[in-house]
Amino acid sequence: MTLELGVLLSGRGSNLQSILDAIACGALDARVRLVVSNRAEAQGLERARKAGIPSLFLDHRGYPDRSAYERELVQRLGAAGVEWVVLAGFMRIVTRELLGAFPERVVNIHPSLLPAFPGLDAQAQALAYGVAMTGCTVHLVDEGVDHGPILAQASLAVEPEDTRETLSARLLDREHALLVATLQRIAEGDLTVSPPADAGGRPRVSWRGGPPRA
Amino acid sequence: MTLELGVLLSGRGSNLQSILDAIACGALDARVRLVVSNRAEAQGLERARKAGIPSLFLDHRGYPDRSAYERELVQRLGAAGVEWVVLAGFMRIVTRELLGAFPERVVNIHPSLLPAFPGLDAQAQALAYGVAMTGCTVHLVDEGVDHGPILAQASLAVEPEDTRETLSARLLDREHALLVATLQRIAEGDLTVSPPADAGGRPRVSWRGGPPRA
Repeated sequence: MTLELGVLLSGRGSNLQSILDAIACGALDARVRLVVSNRAEAQGLERARKAGIPSLFLDHRGYPDRSAYERELVQRLGAAGVEWVVLAGFMRIVTRELLGAFPERVVNIHPSLLPAFPGLDAQAQALAYGVAMTGCTVHLVDEGVDHGPILAQASLAVEPEDTRETLSARLLDREHALLVATLQRIAEGDLTVSPPADAGGRPRVSWRGGPPRA
Repeated sequence: MTLELGVLLSGRGSNLQSILDAIACGALDARVRLVVSNRAEAQGLERARKAGIPSLFLDHRGYPDRSAYERELVQRLGAAGVEWVVLAGFMRIVTRELLGAFPERVVNIHPSLLPAFPGLDAQAQALAYGVAMTGCTVHLVDEGVDHGPILAQASLAVEPEDTRETLSARLLDREHALLVATLQRIAEGDLTVSPPADAGGRPRVSWRGGPPRA
């Protein structure tokens, strides 16, 4: 089945680009129906325009609260035919307004092996801790910060000479590959999400044929 | 330089065995000077006896407090000529009594990619969280639980059918390889530990030629 994607971003949109490239070369069975940025200057908006994808700058400062903003977002995504939402560097915490409209269908990519180093600047956190191994995580979004059920992870060795910039750049390559691989496996119908085993638990993820690898 | 090791354990001592095997086959330039268990029935004691290594059951219940126990431990390790201490499944938190006697020379192996899943039964914690990638960590011991500076890490993919037992078994193979590789690189003089960059920070680890890999 073709995934009908909405991509939310706040910055350069390199993950959007990797999705578009993968679609163009036939590696990903998906359509990007709408790109939304909460920042006008996001380079991701320009990437969408160049690819002929509908794009939208939706300024959260124009709304009285988070819920009002997300109701508008949900309306726009729905009208565009979006079925799965990808947070690709979207620097806003999302709430049940969006999550309820796309239950277990909001995906995030995070530059660490969660649950290690959630939150901002995971690469700098990892370097400050002094880990020898880090990686990236694709997960379903819930109301916690970088907390939802894990869909896929890829590891990466930290090199002694790594800076925040070099580590981020190498991680980004892994992120692109892992995100595309995960979306393609979703498109192939390999993902099953089941209700939590116990109250307060998280939904359980299972993959036909094992989890995506990058 | 030949590492003069003391190995502390509480159980089967599979990491001790991998150290002994690596020494026997010439892959690790070390001598195990003393094996100490805080449990009489630890299989690790038997492994030491079979290898002709001095071994000692030191019952922590025979001491009024942790410090008194560790003073005895330090005395025994020192008398045996131990210079580096390896915690190989030693189920006791160590204190400054031991750490002060072997500054930055107490090494632990933990079955997760720290800082994720410190503490007991890291493998079960990882499975319960639902990670797709885990691993093991060799680190210098400080007074925190599984908290000291990281020396080396190796990652391992979790398989869909993994149980606590299968995951633990595959991790154990990685642990053995990573611990031996790390000790050998220490023996080769490749490790430098520098004071913390700022107050409250941890000592900094650097490896000539990059961190050990397994």
